Amino acid sequence: MALEKEPYKGVRDFYPKDMAIQNYIFEIMRDTAEAYGYEEYSASILEPSELYKAKSGDELINQQTYTFTDRGGRDVTLRPEMTPTVARMIAKKRKEFSFPLRWFSIPNFFRYERPQKGRLREFWQLNVDIFGVEKIDADIEIINIAYDIMRNFGVTEDKFEIRINDRSLVDAKLKEMGLDEDQSTKMKSLIDKKDKMDNFDQMTEALAGKPFSFELDPSDKINTAIKSLNERGISNVVFAPNLMRGFDYYTGIVFEIFDKSGDNNRALFGGGRYDNLLEIFDEEKVPAVGFGMGDVTMRDVLETYNLIPEFTSSTDISICVVDDESIVGAQKLASTLRDQGLNIIVDSSLKKIGDQIKKASKNKIRYVICVGSDEISKDIYKLKDLSSGEEKEVAENQIADSILG
Amino acid sequence: MALEKEPYKGVRDFYPKDMAIQNYIFEIMRDTAEAYGYEEYSASILEPSELYKAKSGDELINQQTYTFTDRGGRDVTLRPEMTPTVARMIAKKRKEFSFPLRWFSIPNFFRYERPQKGRLREFWQLNVDIFGVEKIDADIEIINIAYDIMRNFGVTEDKFEIRINDRSLVDAKLKEMGLDEDQSTKMKSLIDKKDKMDNFDQMTEALAGKPFSFELDPSDKINTAIKSLNERGISNVVFAPNLMRGFDYYTGIVFEIFDKSGDNNRALFGGGRYDNLLEIFDEEKVPAVGFGMGDVTMRDVLETYNLIPEFTSSTDISICVVDDESIVGAQKLASTLRDQGLNIIVDSSLKKIGDQIKKASKNKIRYVICVGSDEISKDIYKLKDLSSGEEKEVAENQIADSILG
Repeated sequence: MALEKEPYKGVRDFYPKDMAIQNYIFEIMRDTAEAYGYEEYSASILEPSELYKAKSGDELINQQTYTFTDRGGRDVTLRPEMTPTVARMIAKKRKEFSFPLRWFSIPNFFRYERPQKGRLREFWQLNVDIFGVEKIDADIEIINIAYDIMRNFGVTEDKFEIRINDRSLVDAKLKEMGLDEDQSTKMKSLIDKKDKMDNFDQMTEALAGKPFSFELDPSDKINTAIKSLNERGISNVVFAPNLMRGFDYYTGIVFEIFDKSGDNNRALFGGGRYDNLLEIFDEEKVPAVGFGMGDVTMRDVLETYNLIPEFTSSTDISICVVDDESIVGAQKLASTLRDQGLNIIVDSSLKKIGDQIKKASKNKIRYVICVGSDEISKDIYKLKDLSSGEEKEVAENQIADSILG
Repeated sequence: MALEKEPYKGVRDFYPKDMAIQNYIFEIMRDTAEAYGYEEYSASILEPSELYKAKSGDELINQQTYTFTDRGGRDVTLRPEMTPTVARMIAKKRKEFSFPLRWFSIPNFFRYERPQKGRLREFWQLNVDIFGVEKIDADIEIINIAYDIMRNFGVTEDKFEIRINDRSLVDAKLKEMGLDEDQSTKMKSLIDKKDKMDNFDQMTEALAGKPFSFELDPSDKINTAIKSLNERGISNVVFAPNLMRGFDYYTGIVFEIFDKSGDNNRALFGGGRYDNLLEIFDEEKVPAVGFGMGDVTMRDVLETYNLIPEFTSSTDISICVVDDESIVGAQKLASTLRDQGLNIIVDSSLKKIGDQIKKASKNKIRYVICVGSDEISKDIYKLKDLSSGEEKEVAENQIADSILG
């Protein structure tokens, strides 16, 4: 029986055209995070399983991780999220650091789920976090970065909305109602789903003895954040009192980027403040704010709005070689041009020139130069732009300038 | 008991300073491969275990893979190398492709080994391959790329050597000696280790009935390759008749980059021709030449030769804010500069200016600007270069030019 050619279920192969899109998405993420002074970090996908046990009540860990025992008897897990890893890294070196730290990473994660649109077993996620700032400035900066990434992808302000809430508002309200921690967690989960529920009042009454009625006004923090974001020219921020964000660890401002298009009409990604980082390491807490933005979701959004750039090869010129005698000369030309920063293929197939040009065109390479002994001896080359059809005669030392401008 | 802060045994955390080095190494690899028109591809680290069973005689697969069963009962493996994956990808789409394909990737691999210098359980490896070319041109191009990467890392020609052999030479010789396939494989393994053995003649005689004596002259292919590389200005290529390269699948030219420094004095990486790709998929064979270059080894080499660039922050300017009233103005300045392509931190800690500057300096940020109401109202800012100590007065619209040149 022949071997299966498909990848493992729920993961992707990245052929060059897919990889170009992936690299484009990562580049926008990276450039935007760096524009705010964030520095890249990373870690292995493989972590000791123990790292996730502090959160063992969590569905993610019990049912969705890839966990196994290595050949030496150690329990290991393919990381399903980045927060435990980054907490571990900061806990280890906290004494060497001077806070705040502005960090980002674009790691991959594994979750054992039924693959479906927008949800795969392996995905990548930009994680942007600022550690060590209690003031609201940090929350505002993080939301601003999330907004800038959307804009840098070409998504206009009318297409999305930034929804913002303050978990401490809700926590205070639930405490006032007399709920214990477990009830409180369940209540937040119900509030989070309110818009999709028919029986919200019934369910919350069953849980708390009386229905959870909304009388939440925006907190000072929310007002400050919205005002400050408005001052920065961001006008699509709204207070969303029933926004919870799933994770238990949020402690203050939470936000999500909501896609307003008919196609999606859902939260794309989000984040918030989690001031209990390092608690699992029995270390002094470090205040933190951050968000995570997945590649699968973002690619869907870019497709919806037709924002994925057309594929063009990273190769600048394909040099078509006319005959066997010209190969050495063609290679020398290629070498000179590479030293000038150009990316060059030498097509030494000796196929018909027309076929060599067709192949370059099919591969979305912009320029071709045909090289025979005549061109080499005279130092006059025809540089053809396949995107416009224009052709011009240039000497070797004019080629780079013609292309790079 | 507090949680462990170390990563899993044999894998690495990449703090920003480590990540900067890793990104530097990847950038040289990527830029060099792209200079030759190679396109990036990738795939998931998780593969169906079945993909590796065709090679089940291999120590790598039997003793060194991370293999486990997923929650749905599928056997999966963390890939230990890229060739089976790339073969799978090409087998799947071979009808859509027009060969040759020039492909590269920088994937990570897992191998369950005892961690030691230069060898970890997780490592990254540049894989550069050209598919679909039978002619020696492909072998020469691949060797040239390997050479260029070394040079682009700053390693001079006197520090390393390119050793080259032709497996088909040895295979013909072994056939002549009457060895079967199994004996032949064992013999190649002995030849590969000849330099480290005391009893080579005894061992080979025990295997083949008579000792394996070297009377190999360079093949035409080797002579052509060496001549062509010399013409390209590469003078450190030598014929190495006992070079085998471990993998069974090589069928022609093999080569390795050998570090001549006293510290290392060993093969850094290598590759060769393997024309039986796709055989495991019962598909028509595709000729292939390529090499793999690991990040751990390369980092060791760069350290040996003091070639790792000094860390500098990707952040261009840290804006120190004088007082609370100036934060909005500082943020506006930052936003303007970010739009001009600069990476900017706004330090809104309101700590003493001296401390803010010290922190920027500690973080290897090159420039600082201190912003108070005076600077904002007059549009005159002092741009201080922390690397030279120079300071100059500039208007907002002169800052980007001053820095980007």
